Amino acid sequence: MSRHENNPLPRGSLIGILGGGQLGQMLTMAATRLGYRTHVYAECSDSPGQRTATFKTSAGYNDKAALMQFAHMSDIVTFEFENVPAGTVKSIDDICPVRPKVKALEIIQDRFTEKSFIRDQEIEVTPFMAVSSGAELESAIKTLGLPLVLKTRRFGYDGKGQAMIRDMSDLKAAISDLNTHAAIAEKFIPFEREVSIIGARDIHGNIRTYPLAENDHARHMLAKTIAPAGGNAGLARNIMEKLLDALDYVGVMAVEFFELADESLLVNEIAPRVHNSGHWTQNAGCVDQFELHIRAITGLPLGNITPRFEVEMINLIGRDVLKTSEFASADNVFIHDYGKKEIKPGRKMGHVNRIVRGL
Amino acid sequence: MSRHENNPLPRGSLIGILGGGQLGQMLTMAATRLGYRTHVYAECSDSPGQRTATFKTSAGYNDKAALMQFAHMSDIVTFEFENVPAGTVKSIDDICPVRPKVKALEIIQDRFTEKSFIRDQEIEVTPFMAVSSGAELESAIKTLGLPLVLKTRRFGYDGKGQAMIRDMSDLKAAISDLNTHAAIAEKFIPFEREVSIIGARDIHGNIRTYPLAENDHARHMLAKTIAPAGGNAGLARNIMEKLLDALDYVGVMAVEFFELADESLLVNEIAPRVHNSGHWTQNAGCVDQFELHIRAITGLPLGNITPRFEVEMINLIGRDVLKTSEFASADNVFIHDYGKKEIKPGRKMGHVNRIVRGL
Repeated sequence: MSRHENNPLPRGSLIGILGGGQLGQMLTMAATRLGYRTHVYAECSDSPGQRTATFKTSAGYNDKAALMQFAHMSDIVTFEFENVPAGTVKSIDDICPVRPKVKALEIIQDRFTEKSFIRDQEIEVTPFMAVSSGAELESAIKTLGLPLVLKTRRFGYDGKGQAMIRDMSDLKAAISDLNTHAAIAEKFIPFEREVSIIGARDIHGNIRTYPLAENDHARHMLAKTIAPAGGNAGLARNIMEKLLDALDYVGVMAVEFFELADESLLVNEIAPRVHNSGHWTQNAGCVDQFELHIRAITGLPLGNITPRFEVEMINLIGRDVLKTSEFASADNVFIHDYGKKEIKPGRKMGHVNRIVRGL
Repeated sequence: MSRHENNPLPRGSLIGILGGGQLGQMLTMAATRLGYRTHVYAECSDSPGQRTATFKTSAGYNDKAALMQFAHMSDIVTFEFENVPAGTVKSIDDICPVRPKVKALEIIQDRFTEKSFIRDQEIEVTPFMAVSSGAELESAIKTLGLPLVLKTRRFGYDGKGQAMIRDMSDLKAAISDLNTHAAIAEKFIPFEREVSIIGARDIHGNIRTYPLAENDHARHMLAKTIAPAGGNAGLARNIMEKLLDALDYVGVMAVEFFELADESLLVNEIAPRVHNSGHWTQNAGCVDQFELHIRAITGLPLGNITPRFEVEMINLIGRDVLKTSEFASADNVFIHDYGKKEIKPGRKMGHVNRIVRGL
């Protein structure tokens, strides 16, 4: 299919989405509203994303035949999780444009290259060092001090693959883990708040950002977001713009920060995708992060994303999702149940957005 | 599947939807948000509703085997258009509850039984008479006066199956049409505005209504809705409540009125389903009509449906839908493209909602 790079993808075009989780599901619904068809490629069948997709493929991320068919059918391809193998994305990109670009994905997939990249842009990050042996870990402790946080370089999410090293007694277990995973040691930051910003850059380089959101975590998992959250929004926006441009990024990206007592911001991590801390935008009376992503990757105008409400987002973890009736009778509460069949403790099953007040 | 009538349908249950148009599509997305799975049964394949459904069946409404399979899979069944054959609905209802009930559908499917039913509730309707012959038509002209509107008793929508009789010269063509279709003659009402109300009644008999909406038609098709629209909202609500109770109705219903100079209201017609004049609710900052319907038929609390915005809804007819880029760059405009492949003049392709102001 040939088309001018500067025209938006025509309605009816097929957007391929790698990953079938709740983010994929909410992307399919946004794409549908804009007149696009969707194809969700996921490892499991009956995934949340596949429920609302025009086409569904259930196959592994190394299933070349399935991937090639997916690529050939699609007009553009995007992804809803950052752990999709870069090789998979590259093989698709030879056939059909992938947005965001594989370069951004590769940098962000490895916490060490990610943090190095951020530091190279002269943006403040938590002090860090790569560690791949007990000796390197001991050297990191000398340089960064205790406590420090040891994270696997790849495939971590929601606190998985993370360990806090408070004292020498935590060291032994950490060293034995290092035998299996390359890691990064980060100085522990006694932050005031965790805040995040969601923004998008389109195929022409236009950028839009939502206000800062404040995030509360419980057991390493996002529990609650409230936005707008005040703070140094100008600084956050500058950092977001710098990163988006440096990565030649197309689509929605999230940047998580530690906010210190003086409102300065240290980048904690980047997510090259729509993000749990942006779900509040769905009921903020403006274009939400899912539609913003679809607009960015298709070349549609990004539009005005100024929220009209302060919104509180609460994640429904495990059995929380059974409280639908209670939420449905509450004023100003909007339910987003991902429809996952099996309820497991610690599993993100849905979220609710509550309108706090008009802005 | 046995369950207590008073408990809401559990998450993960399967909602069957008869009809695959845009209304079905928007119902599937609302059902998905509430954690339900959906099955869209439509005559065509690749219909808008099927795009976002968990399961899809493409078969005729008299295909007994397909209907039985659909009914056996579903936990409840609803419909998105009132012209689904009542016999089809009855055969499903023997296996799986259909909401709204077939009784309401049967009454509303025939304009004469519909208007008679409304009049029997002591609600003001446009004066009408059944006509099935030239002699009866001439008698109707004597009783109701000219001009009058001749409508087929069944299967009319968007002005299809309607003719205005202004003088005796219009009569001849009308009489020849009467040979093929039973009809109803309605006195022409020189109304001030066309307004409508959307409301819902749940399985427990609870009722909620949105404010009145004002509708502008062009070529017998809804062009624009603006809501809230002032007018005699109390009267409209009373009429809606009376009708919902009298029909023992479950789900969303729309009532269209002619508003006269003194703000009195004459019922023009009832639609036993979500309705084009309720699309504005999607961006009004409250539970929208699609989710309200799903809540009503599943037994979830109806919630608070007070709009936070005045919203203008504009239908995208035919090639209007190609202006997506223009709409995407406008402030406060939300795009709803149904994804219909073939653009035809007079075909409803999508709509946009524009937030006018906060309330």
